[in-house]
Amino acid sequence: MSQGFFGPRTASGRAALLPDPPWFYSGDLLTVEYRVDPERVRELLPHPLELADEDPGAVAFIWADWQSCGSDRAQLLDPVLGQYKEAFVVVRCRFGGQTYSRCVYIWVDTDFAIARGLHQGYPKKLGAIHLTRPHPYGPAPRVAPGSRFGASLAASDRRLAEAQITLLEEVPENGFVNAHPMAHNRYVRAIDDPSRFRLDEIIATSAAEAEGGPAYRASVDHFALFPSPTEELDLLAPEEIIGGYYRQVGVVWNGGRVLHDNLADQPEVQHA
Amino acid sequence: MSQGFFGPRTASGRAALLPDPPWFYSGDLLTVEYRVDPERVRELLPHPLELADEDPGAVAFIWADWQSCGSDRAQLLDPVLGQYKEAFVVVRCRFGGQTYSRCVYIWVDTDFAIARGLHQGYPKKLGAIHLTRPHPYGPAPRVAPGSRFGASLAASDRRLAEAQITLLEEVPENGFVNAHPMAHNRYVRAIDDPSRFRLDEIIATSAAEAEGGPAYRASVDHFALFPSPTEELDLLAPEEIIGGYYRQVGVVWNGGRVLHDNLADQPEVQHA
Amino acid sequence: MSQGFFGPRTASGRAALLPDPPWFYSGDLLTVEYRVDPERVRELLPHPLELADEDPGAVAFIWADWQSCGSDRAQLLDPVLGQYKEAFVVVRCRFGGQTYSRCVYIWVDTDFAIARGLHQGYPKKLGAIHLTRPHPYGPAPRVAPGSRFGASLAASDRRLAEAQITLLEEVPENGFVNAHPMAHNRYVRAIDDPSRFRLDEIIATSAAEAEGGPAYRASVDHFALFPSPTEELDLLAPEEIIGGYYRQVGVVWNGGRVLHDNLADQPEVQHA
Amino acid sequence: MSQGFFGPRTASGRAALLPDPPWFYSGDLLTVEYRVDPERVRELLPHPLELADEDPGAVAFIWADWQSCGSDRAQLLDPVLGQYKEAFVVVRCRFGGQTYSRCVYIWVDTDFAIARGLHQGYPKKLGAIHLTRPHPYGPAPRVAPGSRFGASLAASDRRLAEAQITLLEEVPENGFVNAHPMAHNRYVRAIDDPSRFRLDEIIATSAAEAEGGPAYRASVDHFALFPSPTEELDLLAPEEIIGGYYRQVGVVWNGGRVLHDNLADQPEVQHA
Repeated sequence: MSQGFFGPRTASGRAALLPDPPWFYSGDLLTVEYRVDPERVRELLPHPLELADEDPGAVAFIWADWQSCGSDRAQLLDPVLGQYKEAFVVVRCRFGGQTYSRCVYIWVDTDFAIARGLHQGYPKKLGAIHLTRPHPYGPAPRVAPGSRFGASLAASDRRLAEAQITLLEEVPENGFVNAHPMAHNRYVRAIDDPSRFRLDEIIATSAAEAEGGPAYRASVDHFALFPSPTEELDLLAPEEIIGGYYRQVGVVWNGGRVLHDNLADQPEVQHA
Repeated sequence: MSQGFFGPRTASGRAALLPDPPWFYSGDLLTVEYRVDPERVRELLPHPLELADEDPGAVAFIWADWQSCGSDRAQLLDPVLGQYKEAFVVVRCRFGGQTYSRCVYIWVDTDFAIARGLHQGYPKKLGAIHLTRPHPYGPAPRVAPGSRFGASLAASDRRLAEAQITLLEEVPENGFVNAHPMAHNRYVRAIDDPSRFRLDEIIATSAAEAEGGPAYRASVDHFALFPSPTEELDLLAPEEIIGGYYRQVGVVWNGGRVLHDNLADQPEVQHA
Repeated sequence: MSQGFFGPRTASGRAALLPDPPWFYSGDLLTVEYRVDPERVRELLPHPLELADEDPGAVAFIWADWQSCGSDRAQLLDPVLGQYKEAFVVVRCRFGGQTYSRCVYIWVDTDFAIARGLHQGYPKKLGAIHLTRPHPYGPAPRVAPGSRFGASLAASDRRLAEAQITLLEEVPENGFVNAHPMAHNRYVRAIDDPSRFRLDEIIATSAAEAEGGPAYRASVDHFALFPSPTEELDLLAPEEIIGGYYRQVGVVWNGGRVLHDNLADQPEVQHA
Repeated sequence: MSQGFFGPRTASGRAALLPDPPWFYSGDLLTVEYRVDPERVRELLPHPLELADEDPGAVAFIWADWQSCGSDRAQLLDPVLGQYKEAFVVVRCRFGGQTYSRCVYIWVDTDFAIARGLHQGYPKKLGAIHLTRPHPYGPAPRVAPGSRFGASLAASDRRLAEAQITLLEEVPENGFVNAHPMAHNRYVRAIDDPSRFRLDEIIATSAAEAEGGPAYRASVDHFALFPSPTEELDLLAPEEIIGGYYRQVGVVWNGGRVLHDNLADQPEVQHA
C-alpha cells in the first residue's frame, strides 16, 4: 500500500514531501494594509465569490518568517526541512452570507511550503523573501515602539515588492483583512482537455489554534510594488495606505472544509 | 472570468505560473540503467499497477538539462523563466495489458517545473542538479565516443546521487526503461479528511513530438546513491548496472489521457 | 578619485560591496566544543604560530545567524543586504607569548560576508547554513533550559556538518576556544609567480564592542562531520566532546592590527 | 607547511577553494557593445590609467556561461565544482603607451569564481545570471544566423541588466572592447587603518591560450540597465549601441604580470 501525505508515495511514506497534518508554525508577520479600487479585487474573485460588504477594496500585503514542523517536531532540529519565508497578498470576499479572507498571490522559498499551499489552495510560486528579524542585542530592532523593520520580495530575478515600517503602539488586532477564515480554490486541470477542470472546489480553512504576542500598529514609511512581465502586482498598487502591523505568533493548522464544488453544482464553469 | 492554466488565476491570466500547453523542450539526457530486486519496484507501484513482464527490476536514473517554453517561445529569451535541470528515477509497470514507464522520484530546480510536474503526475521536489554540458571548444566534452560526463543530485543540503559515464558508441536506442508512455498518478487529498482522496487517477502521457541526435551507449564509471532521512533512494541501490546512455533531444508535450479513476472504480482504495 | 572600501571602486563609492567599518552585528551563536589530537591543530597553523599551551587540541564548531550593517544601518531595512548565516571552525594558537583564537574553516551564504572575511583574514567559502531560531510562540524553542536547537552545514551540494543541542543552564562564558582575539593570515599570491606571495601577514582582530544575553551550557545530543572530496573537516572529527553553548549577542567590529609580516621577516617562507 | 593556492590553507592543500593555475574554460559569450560619454569611463579609471585614444567611451557588456577546471579536469566530472555564469562590463584604458581592456563591474554565481577573480583583479560580486544556451534540437537556438539569444543579470534580488540579440553573420572579431590584455587593480586595505592600502597594484593578464568557433555579429533587439541603490550601472546607460556579438570559446588562463605598484611609486595615492 502506498503511503505518504503528499508525493512521492512509497511503501513506508518516509520520502513524502509533507508529514501528515497537523502542522505547527512559529513566526513573525509584517503586514501592510491598504486600499485599491474594489474592481481590482472583484476581478480576482472567481464565481461564486463576491466582494465583501464593507471596505471591499482593502488589501493586506504580508511578509512572514516561519519555522514549521509536523507532530514529531523533526523539522525543527534539521531546520533546512522546516524554515521558510513567504510574502502574500490577501483580500476579502463573501460567500453564503459569510466574509472570508482569500490569498490571491503568494511566494515562498521552499518546496514543502509549495506543497502545503497546494493542499490548502494557496497559488504558490517560488520567490526570494527577506524581512528584518527582531533581536534582543545589537543593531537589529527589538519588538517595541520605535523599532523599524524592512521587507522585500523578488521572483524570477526581479524585485516585486518592498516595505519599511516603524512600530508605534500595541493594538488589539493585527489588521483586519487577513482576520477571517480563508476561502480558497483548489484546481486540477484535466489531463486530456486542459480547458476542463478535473477538480475545482472552494474550501474554507483557518488556524486550528493560535497564540501570539501583542500586535503593534506601525507607520508605513515605504511601500512599493514593481512591474514584472509575469506578475500582476502592479494592478494592486495602493490608492490609500491603511496602516502597518507587526506580530509574533504560534499557529497550528489542521485541515478545513469544502464550501462549494464548482464542478458538481455549476457545470457551466467547467470551461475556463 | 478567471484565466490561467495554473495558479494564480487572474482576469488576464498573465500571472499564471504556467502557459497553456503545448510545452516545448530542448535538452540533454544522461541516463544510468540498472537492476534492483523487483520487490523494490513492486512496492512503489500503487494498485492496480503491476510489475512489467520482462526485466521487472530495471530502473533508469536520468539527469536532464532543459530549456523549455510555451508556444510563443517567450521563456527562451528571458531564460530564468525556461531553463531548469532535473534528476529522476523511472521504473516500468503494467496496466491493462500494456507496459508503461513510471517516474517514482524526481527533483527539479524551478517552480514552473514543479507545477508542470503536478499536472503531469510527477512527484516533484526541489533539488540541486548538475550535469556536465557538452561544448565544442576547451576542456568540456564533445558529444562523441571517449567523452566523459558527470552528474550530481542533492536535496535539503544532502547529496543524494552522483554518476560519471564515458561515451562508447552510437546505438539505436537511449535505453529501454524510459521508452514507454508514462503511467502516473495524480492525487489530491480531501481538505476535511486527509485520509481520503479527493482525486486519485492514473493518467498516461508521452511526448507529442520528439527529435534528437544519436543516442550513445556509455560505460558507467561511477554511480552512487546516498542515504537521507527524508528520501528512500537507498532502497533502489543497484544490484547490477545495465549501462549508461547520453542523448540530446527536442520534445513537445501536449497532454495525455486518463487510464483509471481510482475513486470511481475502486472505493476501497480511497483510504490510504 | 576612486572610492569604496572594497571593489568595485567608483567615483562615488556607492557600488562598493562593503561599507566602511565599523560594522555592526546582531546574532545567535550555537557552539560545539570538542577535542582532537593536537597534531590535527598543529598542521593547520602556519609558521610562526604555535599550539596553545593548555588544551591545545580544543576545537569550537560554531553556527551563527547574523543581521549586519554599516554605520547608517541601511542594510537592516533592505535585509537581503545584511542578513547572513555562517558556520566556522576555531582553534587556538600561540604567538609572541599570547594565546589567540584562529578560524581555520568558514562557510557563509552571501558575497558581502565573503568580502568582509577577506579583509579580516577568514578563509571563507560559500555554504548552505541552517540553525534553529529561538521564538517566543509556537513550536520553535525559547532561549531557556530544556530547549533544543539543531544546525547544519553543506557546501557544493554535500552535507558537511550537523549538530543538535539541548540548553541546560546559564553559565558565565560562551565556551573558551573562541574567547581570544583572532590571529589570522591575509594572503595574496603574486600574479606572475603563483608560488610566491605578494602579501602574507598575520593580523590580530577582535570585537570592538560586545553585549549579549546569558550564555547557556548545553548537552550535545548529536554532532557529525561528513567527508567531502574538497574539504578536510573529517580530519577534525571529535575524539571527545567538551560541551555545547548557546548565546545571543550584539557585536561591533572595527579593525585590527598587524602581528607579523611574513614577507618582511621571513623571506624563506615566501615560497609555498 | 601550509598548502593551497587560495584559502583555507591546510597540510595537504585539498581544502583550498582554488586549484593551482593554469585554469581551463569552455564557454559561450554574449556581448553587447555600446558607447557612453567618455567621462563615465574616465571616472572609473584609477590613476595612472587613462582613457583609450580611440573610441574612449566604448563599453562591452558581456554574459558568459562557463565550465571550468584545473589541470586534472576533476571539476568537469563533479560539475557543481566547475560550472558558473557571469555578467561583466568592460571598458578600455591606456597605460605606458599601450591599450588595455579593464573589467569595471562583474557578477558571478559561485565562490570559486569570486576567488579566481580576486587573484585576477576582477571586482566580483554574486549575482543571478541567465543566458539562452544554443542547442541542436527543439526550440532553443542553433549557433547560426537568425537565432535569438536572451540574457539577464540580477543581484540582491533586483534585476540589473537584460539583453536580447539576433545573430546576423559571421565576422572576424567578437567585438573590440574586450580584445586587449586586461589591466586590473588588486587592492587590500590595511587592517589597522582602512584609509590606507596594504596592497595596491595594477596587473596585466590575458588568456594564455584560446580557441573558438566563428564570431557572429548580432542585432541588439533589446538592452536595458536598471537602477539599484547598491549599483552604478545606470551611469553606464548606452548613448549609442555599437552592436552585438556571440561566440563559443575555449580558454586557458595562467597568470599575468605587474604593470605598476601604486604603493611603491606613488605614496600620495595610498589614502583613498
